[in-house]
Amino acid sequence: MRELVAKYEDSNVLVVGGNGSNCRQVAEHYGLKHVVTPEEVHDVYPSVCPSSAPEARAVPLAEKYLQNVHRPVEAIMVFHDSVDWGRDLQVMLDALVSRGGLLGTIKSHTELHTTKQSVPLYFSNSDQVWSNEFPVPRFAQGTFRTCLERIYKDLTGNKLEYTLYGKPHAITYKYAESVLNRLAPVHVGPDGVLRKRTVYMIGDNPYADIAGANGYGWDSLLVRTGVFGGEGNHHIHPATAVVDDVEDAVRWIISKEIMKKHEEVPSELQMHRF
Amino acid sequence: MRELVAKYEDSNVLVVGGNGSNCRQVAEHYGLKHVVTPEEVHDVYPSVCPSSAPEARAVPLAEKYLQNVHRPVEAIMVFHDSVDWGRDLQVMLDALVSRGGLLGTIKSHTELHTTKQSVPLYFSNSDQVWSNEFPVPRFAQGTFRTCLERIYKDLTGNKLEYTLYGKPHAITYKYAESVLNRLAPVHVGPDGVLRKRTVYMIGDNPYADIAGANGYGWDSLLVRTGVFGGEGNHHIHPATAVVDDVEDAVRWIISKEIMKKHEEVPSELQMHRF
Repeated sequence: MRELVAKYEDSNVLVVGGNGSNCRQVAEHYGLKHVVTPEEVHDVYPSVCPSSAPEARAVPLAEKYLQNVHRPVEAIMVFHDSVDWGRDLQVMLDALVSRGGLLGTIKSHTELHTTKQSVPLYFSNSDQVWSNEFPVPRFAQGTFRTCLERIYKDLTGNKLEYTLYGKPHAITYKYAESVLNRLAPVHVGPDGVLRKRTVYMIGDNPYADIAGANGYGWDSLLVRTGVFGGEGNHHIHPATAVVDDVEDAVRWIISKEIMKKHEEVPSELQMHRF
Repeated sequence: MRELVAKYEDSNVLVVGGNGSNCRQVAEHYGLKHVVTPEEVHDVYPSVCPSSAPEARAVPLAEKYLQNVHRPVEAIMVFHDSVDWGRDLQVMLDALVSRGGLLGTIKSHTELHTTKQSVPLYFSNSDQVWSNEFPVPRFAQGTFRTCLERIYKDLTGNKLEYTLYGKPHAITYKYAESVLNRLAPVHVGPDGVLRKRTVYMIGDNPYADIAGANGYGWDSLLVRTGVFGGEGNHHIHPATAVVDDVEDAVRWIISKEIMKKHEEVPSELQMHRF
């Protein structure tokens, strides 16, 4: 979401997700100068979400952050998974249906149905689910987003508009490639031949990791340790190969690269994790 | 929801909503013998909802409650507003799509689309919003329910089935009337005439309070201090009268009862709050 900074560096941005001020710090590090979080809104207005209590604090929130609660919200950026869906959905909806982004105001019934949402909305990830040690996949940011879509649609009759970042969107792969190019520049070998680079994407989510890699022209390796656990390949987004786990993927890649070495085009093997 | 006890007193019931063990205590007081809460599930399986941490406890949860986490869920009852939407939606969905109610299991892709939800679901309240001191109405249990409906539909292609209690459903008014009859029995006056009782419902929500009262044959008074703040009467569920606030409503009722006193039918004036 770094690319949004040029547009919003002087705007008041509602940054959603993560624990405590983690995402505020990331947003400020990116260069956003005016950040406000749902947690800060809840701290100033406990009645904004009466079903959960504002966090008890040994040290009060910095006064300079609380000022932003009273300024109109100019954009909403979801940086990470929400830790309090009820509070965050409520504060996000409040901004979307407010008069010019000012929390605590709401458009008239007619305006809600005839005008666009009051602030633009950005999500950093589009996955519906992700896998952890629990035997069934867990809700990811995409599920949180569909809840907001439904609530917004019910109230206004209109479709929520937003921009998605993250896999499988090409912008994410382009960004990863720019980082790869910085870490391991493609260069001309001593033989004068431009070294060709093959990028292998290892992932567990066919709809995110594999779909994105295939679309961007990378080779894709689907592991069976995460979201995907079926037999064979995925029916909608087939990977270049399906392997048991990451170790198996690395073995597969090394074998393929060794085979290549015996052919004419020189290659190099490096691993990066995003 | 007391009426559900006869059916579920020996079942393992997932009780959702409220802070800490409040709703567990209400459910047990009603007569449910085997209760489990999302908080207890989270305590046993922290990975069930990794975006929020299980509550830190000075005293561990009672072992006898934790046993219920491992038993199949046989019904889900939402007693009160959720204090952790992400966790509660996840645990509820887990039960709905599980094999026979056992958390940590999930039906096959085909079964998800061709079979009904694994457990029946009950909500105590159908309001989409309610009003507090925040200038814009807040999410109520109905909004939480629509999120679950959307998530369930996205995963299974099927419509979530549930039973709604609370206003405007007649069952709630019938229950209120039974309580009124106990507190203030309708009786025959010294003149031998059966005293006629008029029930006035005062409420702020046209879709819940007023719709229900009108449907049940009670007089309805809509106040302007809550969810409804418009001019005139509500366009879909018009009340018997619209008044500024509760005090105004009481004045209106007293005036009406005094006028009645001057007519032939004796009446009596009592107030109860539900």
